Amino acid sequence: MTTLFPTYIDDKALAQDLILSQFDNFLIDCDGVIWLSEQLLPKINQFLQFLTKNNKKFTFVTNNSSKSRQSYVTKFKNLGIDGVTIDQIYTTGYSAVLQLKKMGILPGEKIWVLGDEGIEDELLSEGYIPLGGSNELLNQSWSDKNPLLIIDPEVRAVIAGSTLNFNYMRIATTLQYLMHNDKTLPFIGTNGDRNYPGSNGLTLPAGGSMVEYMAYSSQRDYVNVGKPDTTLAETILANTGYDKLKTIMIGDTLYSDIKFGNEAQLGGDNGSGTLLVLSGVTDKEELTNTVNIARETKQGQSLVPRYYIDSLTKLIELLEE
Amino acid sequence: MTTLFPTYIDDKALAQDLILSQFDNFLIDCDGVIWLSEQLLPKINQFLQFLTKNNKKFTFVTNNSSKSRQSYVTKFKNLGIDGVTIDQIYTTGYSAVLQLKKMGILPGEKIWVLGDEGIEDELLSEGYIPLGGSNELLNQSWSDKNPLLIIDPEVRAVIAGSTLNFNYMRIATTLQYLMHNDKTLPFIGTNGDRNYPGSNGLTLPAGGSMVEYMAYSSQRDYVNVGKPDTTLAETILANTGYDKLKTIMIGDTLYSDIKFGNEAQLGGDNGSGTLLVLSGVTDKEELTNTVNIARETKQGQSLVPRYYIDSLTKLIELLEE
Repeated sequence: MTTLFPTYIDDKALAQDLILSQFDNFLIDCDGVIWLSEQLLPKINQFLQFLTKNNKKFTFVTNNSSKSRQSYVTKFKNLGIDGVTIDQIYTTGYSAVLQLKKMGILPGEKIWVLGDEGIEDELLSEGYIPLGGSNELLNQSWSDKNPLLIIDPEVRAVIAGSTLNFNYMRIATTLQYLMHNDKTLPFIGTNGDRNYPGSNGLTLPAGGSMVEYMAYSSQRDYVNVGKPDTTLAETILANTGYDKLKTIMIGDTLYSDIKFGNEAQLGGDNGSGTLLVLSGVTDKEELTNTVNIARETKQGQSLVPRYYIDSLTKLIELLEE
Repeated sequence: MTTLFPTYIDDKALAQDLILSQFDNFLIDCDGVIWLSEQLLPKINQFLQFLTKNNKKFTFVTNNSSKSRQSYVTKFKNLGIDGVTIDQIYTTGYSAVLQLKKMGILPGEKIWVLGDEGIEDELLSEGYIPLGGSNELLNQSWSDKNPLLIIDPEVRAVIAGSTLNFNYMRIATTLQYLMHNDKTLPFIGTNGDRNYPGSNGLTLPAGGSMVEYMAYSSQRDYVNVGKPDTTLAETILANTGYDKLKTIMIGDTLYSDIKFGNEAQLGGDNGSGTLLVLSGVTDKEELTNTVNIARETKQGQSLVPRYYIDSLTKLIELLEE
């Protein structure tokens, strides 16, 4: 496990040791690390170019399910970051589809979706039939006559994720499937994230709140296919061929990103493969509190990063000093 | 505590003993007991008339906050039940207002509401200023430019309850207040109910799911002012003057109604003041499972009713045999 004494990266030598010597592969969260909602953080392009120039590999791992991997490729391009390909992106919509296959639920089957095109597109591209999701009938005000309240008995699983169109009609239709047949339909959730930092200093509700809403309302557990699920880490390492010992997770959230890196034992079982950036969800105070609790009570050790820094902006500034 | 051997009321003598001899005062839940959504259950009017004819008193106690007490009076009237007065009705919207006063937050103050007119009207009638709630701006699609995202620093508390207009805009605005000033604004929730039986055999998400959504997203606890909160029972007993030993709770939900009656020690501390009806949330199987678990593990004893019956319809049929 990790040392419980995170190292603050504040000079060029430390930054170089971390990025150039210790690690070859970088798993990078997006929201709070690369951008805040639609706003790219400064000098991110330089940082990624620096990695490429030094023969480093990187893959983006996001708990967001609202966009498909293809939409992420487009978003990077629109923000001025060229050359990111679909195989460098893991969304939880895609992760949910991988989970279906693992459960033996094969292409051709119908899947009920609480979420957006990010999940629907991934299902369609693998040959599944998504129901619910962005169907216009779900945007209507509540009515117990809505035809989507009548269960399609061919549905084989429920995938729940984030949607800005979260409303009572979507909640109620999804609940019918979760309660159906003595609660036996598999229930996959894209993550358990509570909130995230939006633009204008807002704290916004994250997709995990919606998954948890459905879990609470139905009194059911769900299979979490987002970070910090270790299965996701194994899948990514297998698909990319990254050496786990030379791989580090960079993220802004202790209970998803840092826990993910630690539980997957990135950088080895001494847990050196985690770097927290303070540009998103977690501030210095929360880090300090978490570290103190971990030291004093031995609780939450997997939440403690090995390294931390203000932002990727700061990191590239140190590297280019 | 209760005997853990609930008595099934299935003949006239048992029914008469319960209603005519043992108890004088009846706290009655509405949804699943009196009606299913907008549909009155059979012979409810006869049952209430039977109580009145025999000099029994009754008060309705609902975890629903979407309607004000005055709207409940109107609903009873529209369903053909005359003579129900506002002081016979306890909604959780009203209960939330009583909680504000207990916290020293006095009339004239601004209160942020996640919920409907049921909460707003109770606040207004006591002289508070509700913000949020049914404001049309909250019905819009998500935009981080919505003016209601800018916090009003004069807001003194947040009340969260049920609304069929639950959407991302309402969630996001409410979250700003819950996170504000290091999460110090008082957070009152109308109940923690998960789901309830709707018309057409549907299981519908209950208001407590929305309260829990906000609690999860903000990582905060809330003050629960609905059943099974014992403070609510004390308030009702004080206001009505009911003798606790001669009072019974009639409801369809184990974890709100029955727990409420048991924890308030209605009927005395041997817990004889609870009657479960099977016309709503709880079916026979759930009752049996709960009783078995309570007997074997001593867990959840407060969920076990002293008496149970199919419905109030069945009860009046037995009484009028």
